[in-house]
Amino acid sequence: MSDDLRDRAASLDAQDELAAHRELFALDDGGVYLDGNSLGALPRHVPDRVADVVARQWGELRIRSWDESGWWTAPERIGDRIAPLVGAAPGQVVVGDSTSVNVFKALVGAVRLADLAGPDRDEIVVDATTFPTDGYIAESAARLTGRRLVPAAPGEVADAVGPRTAAVLLNHVDYRSGRLHDLPGLTAAVHAAGALAVWDLCHSAGALPVGLDAHGVDLAVGCTYKYLNGGPGAPAFLYVAERHQAGFDSPLPGWNSHADPFAMTPGYAAADGALRGRVGTPDILSMLALEAALDVWDGVAIDAVRAKSLALTDFFLECVERHVPGGRVTPVTPRPHAERGSQVSLRCEDAPVVMKELIARGVVGDLRRPDILRFGFTPLYVSFADAERAARVLADVLSVRTG
Amino acid sequence: MSDDLRDRAASLDAQDELAAHRELFALDDGGVYLDGNSLGALPRHVPDRVADVVARQWGELRIRSWDESGWWTAPERIGDRIAPLVGAAPGQVVVGDSTSVNVFKALVGAVRLADLAGPDRDEIVVDATTFPTDGYIAESAARLTGRRLVPAAPGEVADAVGPRTAAVLLNHVDYRSGRLHDLPGLTAAVHAAGALAVWDLCHSAGALPVGLDAHGVDLAVGCTYKYLNGGPGAPAFLYVAERHQAGFDSPLPGWNSHADPFAMTPGYAAADGALRGRVGTPDILSMLALEAALDVWDGVAIDAVRAKSLALTDFFLECVERHVPGGRVTPVTPRPHAERGSQVSLRCEDAPVVMKELIARGVVGDLRRPDILRFGFTPLYVSFADAERAARVLADVLSVRTG
Repeated sequence: MSDDLRDRAASLDAQDELAAHRELFALDDGGVYLDGNSLGALPRHVPDRVADVVARQWGELRIRSWDESGWWTAPERIGDRIAPLVGAAPGQVVVGDSTSVNVFKALVGAVRLADLAGPDRDEIVVDATTFPTDGYIAESAARLTGRRLVPAAPGEVADAVGPRTAAVLLNHVDYRSGRLHDLPGLTAAVHAAGALAVWDLCHSAGALPVGLDAHGVDLAVGCTYKYLNGGPGAPAFLYVAERHQAGFDSPLPGWNSHADPFAMTPGYAAADGALRGRVGTPDILSMLALEAALDVWDGVAIDAVRAKSLALTDFFLECVERHVPGGRVTPVTPRPHAERGSQVSLRCEDAPVVMKELIARGVVGDLRRPDILRFGFTPLYVSFADAERAARVLADVLSVRTG
Repeated sequence: MSDDLRDRAASLDAQDELAAHRELFALDDGGVYLDGNSLGALPRHVPDRVADVVARQWGELRIRSWDESGWWTAPERIGDRIAPLVGAAPGQVVVGDSTSVNVFKALVGAVRLADLAGPDRDEIVVDATTFPTDGYIAESAARLTGRRLVPAAPGEVADAVGPRTAAVLLNHVDYRSGRLHDLPGLTAAVHAAGALAVWDLCHSAGALPVGLDAHGVDLAVGCTYKYLNGGPGAPAFLYVAERHQAGFDSPLPGWNSHADPFAMTPGYAAADGALRGRVGTPDILSMLALEAALDVWDGVAIDAVRAKSLALTDFFLECVERHVPGGRVTPVTPRPHAERGSQVSLRCEDAPVVMKELIARGVVGDLRRPDILRFGFTPLYVSFADAERAARVLADVLSVRTG
């Protein structure tokens, strides 16, 4: 039975049009890396590029690099490279700061945009199942803007929104379960109530088509160190739809977002466009590592990534079903493709020790307490053989523990 | 006359106990770098350290580095390395985010601390001469917390503060003029009014003793890419005095500041100590470059740095006076040591073209529009010979333009 699955994996890998991309990544340690939804693997060409930024751009050109090496314009330039991966036309995405900081900008900005349309919207609806930082920051945004925070599961959002709703913060893919939410449908429901939709794309950007422009999303934030492989703590991105940019009023109006930053005038005047979302001096080393890392996307269609992602997670679920002793794990990631992101989460009673043993055997996923084994599938570098091997090693670990 | 100054420079360099530190920096391009108050020079050992972070910590250990390479604890660990340079005991400084974002945390935090003491303090006083981002962010903090912003020059602060003042945001050294403000005296005046003092140390950290603990400063922020040589856009730092930490209520309560971040609970519970100032995932590449860069401070006393800084700026002012045609430039940096930071600013009618020509001749300072030539003196790597040469080249440039 096991040989059968290995043959299938080999056949699927042989037909995989993205298979050659794996060579672009540093993955020659013989293990299986299924934690790219937490920290993407290193593209092989990035170390040389970072070395050049450090030794030549900083070390030799020093201050001149703000112009000559394009440091100053990096946030919007890199934003424009991410834009097509999330379905955004140029000029709407800017890179910088952490995801949490960008959630704050986006949510306060959304509330203020709602104010422009009318004064009576005093509620912020937030995905109650969301990654915690979104909820914490939403609470702070609500407190500082005098709004009431209304938690709602994504399935309840259509009922929770109404004439009092200013903005709704939603996660595209649930970090724990891997459930993909209906971005077009929920955005439409939010708009039907006259509110703004703010999406967190941390677990979808680079993993599947998002279609920000096509679906009329208002604002969005996302992470670049997961499926975009930008490196540990690489700066996040902020999307402000073009139609909202003139009214976008950032709660963090740092000098980098000023219309004429080097005039250094005491009065603030916001720049036009996406760079209104900038704040302070960008963290150039982290940012230019990200820029380099984005080269792996050259010529890659996000639809092909999505197709492989679904094939990988389908296959992994099948391998788990076939290999793993009955009842030891329960998939919590939905089976329907329309509801699945690019990870598989398995509930497992003794998840902490199981994940520790998996990692010791070279299969790297991660744990979400108390009982979730989480496996991320990054289509650019994960193979079907990886998926089969991960399920097999998981079965071994669980059999030993069961036995 | 010129030879006399060159001899003096040689003699001062020969006696300089910090002279050997210059060898720690990549400065072998034959120029004079007087822009370390904008971007500190590269310490020679940093490229290898960054290469290790990228290739081994990210590329090989990947996700394991959050524990094994100490990524997770970097913000507070690096904070503790900066602490002694600004006169803070351990556990009060955390690194991360930009200066602008930290000004926001500190100022909103200060207003909320003031609220704990009593409800009637509805004003934020801000240095009207400050670096613009501080003013812009202070305005946002005031707006979001329902306070009135009161601009005041540092000399007017003692009169501007009163029973309605919640917090005062001040710059330790003016970025444009290089004027050093009286941190102990102004802090005492702010405290006498029952308000909190928030200091921006961007142009003093690493250049002179600050004495945060000794002078009872409440909160402070600072930059690490100027005199601390952390690299372009290296993360800023936030100081929260130990006595205020339990009451510090961040407006950016990201998951990194949670008491148990990996529990990922929907309710926010702030961590103890300085790490309450953390927000989202730290930008590890920029952050660990900074950590490496701080090695140049091993065994360096900040008092020795200050003594050399004053000797350098004294000598540069003398050289300018002797070399430069009368009336062509006017120093705006105060002569008294107690009022001088670690830069010399010269007003010059045609400053833009003069700075351009200086840079073309290898003397790198910078311009602050419309008419300020700004020269920063970083005692760890600037020599007295540099100071003399810069003044001489400036004289040449101005003579040509005058003639």
